[in-house]
Amino acid sequence: MLKIIISGCNGHMGRVVTSLCEADPQVQVVAGFDVLGASDREFPVYSSPAQFHGEADAVIDFSSPAALDGLLSFARDTRIPMILATTGYTPEQVAQIGAAALEVPIFRSANMSLGINVLLELVKKASTVLGDSYDIEIIERHHRRKVDAPSGTALMIADAAASACGHETEYVFDRHSVRQPRDKKEIGISAVRGGTIVGEHEIIFAGHDEVMEIRHIAHSREIFAKGALEAAKFMATVDAPGLYDMSMLVK
Amino acid sequence: MLKIIISGCNGHMGRVVTSLCEADPQVQVVAGFDVLGASDREFPVYSSPAQFHGEADAVIDFSSPAALDGLLSFARDTRIPMILATTGYTPEQVAQIGAAALEVPIFRSANMSLGINVLLELVKKASTVLGDSYDIEIIERHHRRKVDAPSGTALMIADAAASACGHETEYVFDRHSVRQPRDKKEIGISAVRGGTIVGEHEIIFAGHDEVMEIRHIAHSREIFAKGALEAAKFMATVDAPGLYDMSMLVK
Amino acid sequence: MLKIIISGCNGHMGRVVTSLCEADPQVQVVAGFDVLGASDREFPVYSSPAQFHGEADAVIDFSSPAALDGLLSFARDTRIPMILATTGYTPEQVAQIGAAALEVPIFRSANMSLGINVLLELVKKASTVLGDSYDIEIIERHHRRKVDAPSGTALMIADAAASACGHETEYVFDRHSVRQPRDKKEIGISAVRGGTIVGEHEIIFAGHDEVMEIRHIAHSREIFAKGALEAAKFMATVDAPGLYDMSMLVK
Amino acid sequence: MLKIIISGCNGHMGRVVTSLCEADPQVQVVAGFDVLGASDREFPVYSSPAQFHGEADAVIDFSSPAALDGLLSFARDTRIPMILATTGYTPEQVAQIGAAALEVPIFRSANMSLGINVLLELVKKASTVLGDSYDIEIIERHHRRKVDAPSGTALMIADAAASACGHETEYVFDRHSVRQPRDKKEIGISAVRGGTIVGEHEIIFAGHDEVMEIRHIAHSREIFAKGALEAAKFMATVDAPGLYDMSMLVK
Repeated sequence: MLKIIISGCNGHMGRVVTSLCEADPQVQVVAGFDVLGASDREFPVYSSPAQFHGEADAVIDFSSPAALDGLLSFARDTRIPMILATTGYTPEQVAQIGAAALEVPIFRSANMSLGINVLLELVKKASTVLGDSYDIEIIERHHRRKVDAPSGTALMIADAAASACGHETEYVFDRHSVRQPRDKKEIGISAVRGGTIVGEHEIIFAGHDEVMEIRHIAHSREIFAKGALEAAKFMATVDAPGLYDMSMLVK
Repeated sequence: MLKIIISGCNGHMGRVVTSLCEADPQVQVVAGFDVLGASDREFPVYSSPAQFHGEADAVIDFSSPAALDGLLSFARDTRIPMILATTGYTPEQVAQIGAAALEVPIFRSANMSLGINVLLELVKKASTVLGDSYDIEIIERHHRRKVDAPSGTALMIADAAASACGHETEYVFDRHSVRQPRDKKEIGISAVRGGTIVGEHEIIFAGHDEVMEIRHIAHSREIFAKGALEAAKFMATVDAPGLYDMSMLVK
Repeated sequence: MLKIIISGCNGHMGRVVTSLCEADPQVQVVAGFDVLGASDREFPVYSSPAQFHGEADAVIDFSSPAALDGLLSFARDTRIPMILATTGYTPEQVAQIGAAALEVPIFRSANMSLGINVLLELVKKASTVLGDSYDIEIIERHHRRKVDAPSGTALMIADAAASACGHETEYVFDRHSVRQPRDKKEIGISAVRGGTIVGEHEIIFAGHDEVMEIRHIAHSREIFAKGALEAAKFMATVDAPGLYDMSMLVK
Repeated sequence: MLKIIISGCNGHMGRVVTSLCEADPQVQVVAGFDVLGASDREFPVYSSPAQFHGEADAVIDFSSPAALDGLLSFARDTRIPMILATTGYTPEQVAQIGAAALEVPIFRSANMSLGINVLLELVKKASTVLGDSYDIEIIERHHRRKVDAPSGTALMIADAAASACGHETEYVFDRHSVRQPRDKKEIGISAVRGGTIVGEHEIIFAGHDEVMEIRHIAHSREIFAKGALEAAKFMATVDAPGLYDMSMLVK
C-alpha cells in the first residue's frame, strides 16, 4: 500500500488527485497539507508540513510556489520523495529545487501529463532524423481565458525539436509583417485561442511532398493528476537523491 | 462544343488549363494569346488579342495583370465573356474591371477553386449562426517559398466570417507579445510555412465544450484551372453584362 | 423570466441542464419531474407530471422513453411546449410524438447539440454543390464503452449527405473484404473507438486534387443540455402546435 | 560520385527516380535496365542485367516482381548492392531475397518513404509506453481507384504497434455489425477512399482524457523515389552481405 501526502489538497487539482488516489486500491492518502487548514476530508489536513510526524512514501504537491520553502525543509528532514506538480516557479526557486535534489529525491516536470512527455520523446526522435531536411512548425490551441501565448508546453516542444534537429533555430511567432520565404532555421509557433479548449499541441514536420504530424489533445486537467500519481508510484521505488522527471517514465 | 480561348497559354497555369480543355470532349481550344507568340501548340497563338478574328464562347485568362488592357478592349469589341483567373491586380485595375463589367460579362474570383468557394459559403452560414457565442480562428499552411502571410485566401475567409458573425472584429496575427485573455472581437489568423505544402485553410469555431472545424486542402494548383473551366462553361450560358464570380457556381 | 420544468431532473443530464438553468439569470426552474421523487433540490420534484398544477413556459425532458406517455398527456392537458431531449424512442413512440404534435408544440431532435445541427446544414449545402464530383466519407470517434457503431449522429450526417448529393448512395462499413475500386455511390462510414473520447464526427468531400472536411468535436455532454435550453427559449416564443427541431435554430 | 543503375528505368517510378538522380550533383546514372529496351535516355538501357559490364555502386529497382531472378543473379555475380523498391513479391520471392542476402547486400522495404519509416519508429516507441492503458486505432486514406483495403502500409503500422504494445491484439475492420464495447485487444483499422488522395496514415492512441495522434501525409509518389535514393547512398557505404531496410536510415 502506497502512503501518499497531498500538498494543496483543498485546491482544484489537489482534490482531483485526491479522488484518483482514493479510487486506487494500491494507494492510501495519509495526510493533506493546505494553508486553508482542516476540512471535511477523510484524512488529517495540516496547515504546515512540519506538523506531520507519520510515515509516507511520497508527497504530491499541487499547491503554489509560495509553499516551496516548507516542502523542501520537510523533504530534507524526512527524506520522503517529493513530486512537485506546481507550476510558476521563479528561476531562483528552480535553482533551489536543484540544490535540494542533491540531498533528497525530487520529481519535477513542467507538464505532468504522460502523453505530453511521450510526445516530447517522439519529437526528439523525429527531429533527429528529419530535422535537416524537413521544416518544423508548432500549433497549440487553448481556451479563450488563457493569458500567456504560446503555452509553456509549446515552448518545451520547440526546445526539444531545436536541441535535436542539428542546426541553428529561431522561434517565429508572427509572419504577417514580413514578406520573405521561410528560412530554414525558423520554427514557427502559432497560438490559437477559443472557447473552452483544454489544450492541444501539434508539431508538423513538412518535407518535400510529405508531412508528418504529431498531436496531443488533453480533454481534462485530470491527466496532470494522473501523471503525478504515476510519478509518486515511480518515486516510491527510488532511494537515491536526484532530480527526476517524466522523461524517466516514458523511456 | 464550347469554343475557348486561353490567354497566357504558354505559362504554367495556361498549359494546365489547356490540358484540361483538351481532355474534355465538350470543349475545343480555338486560340491562345501569349506575348511569347507562336509555339508548338495545336491551335493558333496570337501575341495580342486584337489579332484574333474568329468565334469563341469564352476567354480563360491565366496571364498577368499587364495583359488586362488588351483583354478588356477585346471583350468590349467582341462581347465574348471573359474569365479573369489572373491574380495580383492593383486596386485601379479592379476598378477598371468593374467598369468594363457594366458593358460586357466578366467573371473574376480571387481564388478560382470550387472547393474554397464552397468553404466560403459554409463559413458565412456557420458564422451567422455561431458567430455570437463561438470564437473564430483561422490557420493556413503553405510551402516554404511563399513570401506573403497570411494568404490572400485566408483573408477572404476571415472577411467572410467577419461580415457574417454579427459583431465587430479585429484580425490578430501574433499573440506572443501580449498577456491577456482573448477578446471576443478577435479573429486569430495563423500562417504555417513548410516543405512543399500546396495550400491548406482551416477555420475553427470554438464554443463552450464544442468545436467545429471546416478545412480545405489543395493537392495541386490544377484545381484553379478546373474552376476556371467550370466558370467558362457557366459564362457561356450568360448573355448579360455584369461581374460574375465563383459564389454563383456554389449556390 | 422563463419558467422551466426539468423532467428527469435527478438523472445525470437532468442535473446538468438544471445547473445551466440556475446559472442563467433569465431562467427559473419551477419544478422537476422524476420517478425518484423528492430530493434536496431547490424546487419541488414530482414523481408524475400530473401532480404539477402551476405555470410554466416549457418542459425540458432528459428522462427515459418510459416517461413519454405521462409527458404527452401533460402536454395535451396544459399546452405547455415540450422539449424531448431523451433518446432511444421506438418507432411507435416516434409516431406517437408526431400525433401529439398535431395538437401541441413539441420539439425533438436526435442530437440536441447546436454545433452538430449547424454541421448538418453545412453538409446539406456542401453535398448539393459537390455531391456529383466529390466522394463523401464519414469518420466518427467515440469512447471505448460505446456499444453501437456507427453512432446515430454519423447516420444522421450520412442521411443529410445522401439526400442532398443528387445521386443514388450506399453506406459502406467495411472495405477490407472486397478488392475493387470505390464506387461513386458509396458513402464510407468508419467508427473509431478508444479511451474516453466524448464524440467526434468528420465528413470528408474528396475531389480531384482537393479535399474539404467538416468536423465537430464534443468535449462534454453538457452541449446537449445547452442545446435543450436554447430550444426551450425558442419554444417559449411558439404558440402553434407542430413538431419543431434543432434545424429551426440554425437557419 | 555515386554510380547508380536504375532497374525499370522506363516505368513511371523509374523515370521519377532517374530525374532525382540527374538533379543530384553527387549522383550519376550509369545505366538502366528495362524490358522495353533502349530509348531516348542519356545512359545505356539494357533489356537484361547480364548485358551490363561496367562499374556501379548500387542498383535501384522499381521494375516488377518478374525481374527479380535476373536481378538476384546480377547481384550474386557483381556484388553490387541492390535496392529493391518494387512491391508485390510473393512469399516465395521474399524467401529468395532473404537467401540471396546471405551472400550479397540487399535493401528492401515495403514502403520506401523516409517519413513512413520514421512514423513506424515513433509508433513502436509510443506503443511500448502507452500500449497498456491507451487504445490504438488506425485510419488510412487513399484515392478512389485503390483496390485493396486496408493499405499494406496501414498493416505495417498495425504490426509495429501490435508487436510493441505488450498485450495480445486483434485487428478489427468493421464495427457496425456488432453491439458491444471495445475490447482492449482490438486495433481498429479504417480505410477511407475518395478523390485523388495520394496516401495518408494516422495512428491514434486514445487514453483517459487524452489522445495522441501521429499522422503521415504523402503528397506525391516521388517520396518513394527519394527514399530509394537515400537507401542507395546508404548501401554504397555497406560492404557486408545482409538484408537492410529503411529502419536503418531512421535510427
